[in-house]
Amino acid sequence: MHDLIVIGGGPAAIGAAVYAGRKKLKALLIADAIGGQSIVSDKIENWIGEIAISGFELAEKLEKHLRTQKSVEIKIPEKVLKIEAINCINENNDSTKHKRVCDFAVTTNKNSSYSAKAVIVASGARRKRLGILGEDKFDGKGVAFCSTCDAPIFAGKDVAVVGGGNAGLEAVADLFPYADKIYLLVRGDALKGDAVTQEEVKKNSKTEILFNTIPKEIFGEQFVLGLKYINTKTNEEKTLNIGGVFVEIGSVPNSEMVRGLVDINQYGEIVIDHRTCATSHTGIFAAGDVTDELYKQNNISVGEGIIAALSAYNYILQRQKQIPASS
Amino acid sequence: MHDLIVIGGGPAAIGAAVYAGRKKLKALLIADAIGGQSIVSDKIENWIGEIAISGFELAEKLEKHLRTQKSVEIKIPEKVLKIEAINCINENNDSTKHKRVCDFAVTTNKNSSYSAKAVIVASGARRKRLGILGEDKFDGKGVAFCSTCDAPIFAGKDVAVVGGGNAGLEAVADLFPYADKIYLLVRGDALKGDAVTQEEVKKNSKTEILFNTIPKEIFGEQFVLGLKYINTKTNEEKTLNIGGVFVEIGSVPNSEMVRGLVDINQYGEIVIDHRTCATSHTGIFAAGDVTDELYKQNNISVGEGIIAALSAYNYILQRQKQIPASS
Repeated sequence: MHDLIVIGGGPAAIGAAVYAGRKKLKALLIADAIGGQSIVSDKIENWIGEIAISGFELAEKLEKHLRTQKSVEIKIPEKVLKIEAINCINENNDSTKHKRVCDFAVTTNKNSSYSAKAVIVASGARRKRLGILGEDKFDGKGVAFCSTCDAPIFAGKDVAVVGGGNAGLEAVADLFPYADKIYLLVRGDALKGDAVTQEEVKKNSKTEILFNTIPKEIFGEQFVLGLKYINTKTNEEKTLNIGGVFVEIGSVPNSEMVRGLVDINQYGEIVIDHRTCATSHTGIFAAGDVTDELYKQNNISVGEGIIAALSAYNYILQRQKQIPASS
Repeated sequence: MHDLIVIGGGPAAIGAAVYAGRKKLKALLIADAIGGQSIVSDKIENWIGEIAISGFELAEKLEKHLRTQKSVEIKIPEKVLKIEAINCINENNDSTKHKRVCDFAVTTNKNSSYSAKAVIVASGARRKRLGILGEDKFDGKGVAFCSTCDAPIFAGKDVAVVGGGNAGLEAVADLFPYADKIYLLVRGDALKGDAVTQEEVKKNSKTEILFNTIPKEIFGEQFVLGLKYINTKTNEEKTLNIGGVFVEIGSVPNSEMVRGLVDINQYGEIVIDHRTCATSHTGIFAAGDVTDELYKQNNISVGEGIIAALSAYNYILQRQKQIPASS
């Protein structure tokens, strides 16, 4: 039985695990990998304190810091499939299911089961997909989800980027040194990303922005040859003859493992008290992109991970006074 | 007229200013100094991503990052004395004073006045004092508020540390290499700091912990010669013959400049919505140790500063749609 299980390997999870270690909690961190979603970034300019750092370098710094914590056991790569409340005790005759004091059993894809007094879910989010014909078929054959990783493959080609937020704009910028022409497909009639990045994208003559458009089908032979899309103002279907499609339309929170156990909002995000990072279930805390935080940013996630760890620490101390170890 | 004024120079303020710069806001940062309260720390082991860094090195990293932002003007050293709401417009006939859309006038100790559409208060906190006889008289003559700075001065002496939280425990640890004997005066009957630091302090034979004690008077001649304290269990007054007193009893938020303008709690902390970092007054945001955040930590403050900046950015955009620039 651990004191605390931290699920995830991004900034929120590392912040939580480092602080759990400093509090000498018997902690276990379970993650697919260390570094979080920005590990694919070539150049991060908004990790406060570093003028520029790559996602890979940041991941290395986080992992080194994590590994200084002697009381934190690490399981990588391992994926949590389910969290269950076990050994529940009704606290103060409170009949609300979520308010029970429980232990938690965490099951993973290695058929392992771990238990703990408290859990921090910092499992992040993953890329959204378009769900259109050809997207799966040409995945890795012209359909890409990571511009930093894959931009060089598209040297000398015309490509499309789908998504008018920061991710889409950054993908266009990533493609400037490689692609000949970049079509940016935007669902609405305006861009959503940072003013700085918008300007950069607009002023480059390689960019053509297609507002009010929805992708319909990706086609090709061995490799992508084109994209069909609908103009939602005219209802016309049009075709772009291009060699690549970058899908940059946002992300889905990795909250499946606590579905039914804690409150989750319409976007699949875990609802938290933003002052304590507590979820609706006593003993389960959450931090970072898997939560309903307003802005998904590395530094914000770190702060939340630390809040979650300190709240979990206080909870475990409080709980030990209530439940003697023998029970 | 600026878009945004950021008040402070610690992690919260730098996080806010870097993000304001990335959003190309015409911003002004006003601070006594860059680095925040931990600038005096010899070795910070919980700045996530760095195994160990001094407070001075951290301040340098923060300042370098800040100075990459071309749209952020910087005024250091300058101290904000007052923030006033000016040019207020009643929004939606809402009669609540706090809900008016206003500009803000910021007055400083250089007799300067700056105005902006939004303000982020990230002015941090300062050390609490005991308020007992001799504390002011012997300040810098045996009474100290920064163990990292002043521990070496007390080599070969017996000293007292007042405060049973992390600050007190860390002061004791800082003094181990120098002082002969360290009395730790704790108001209650238990220590409050991290388990790790508690252990470190308890196992060292130089430490003597005096629980249930309240300092009464610091006395001396040229320099401190002793401390009188009360044992609150027995009501006895006792005297320690010591050469130094470290006061480590917490801090006071620097919220004076917004008193009367935004909601402040009983501890003098600015009350914020922890998801948006909005205060009770439209257009004023707050982040870091000056707020009612639960845990005062550098990384948490950075995250809050960023939340405040992104919320201020959204607010300024929204406001510009409502109020044409000519009004």
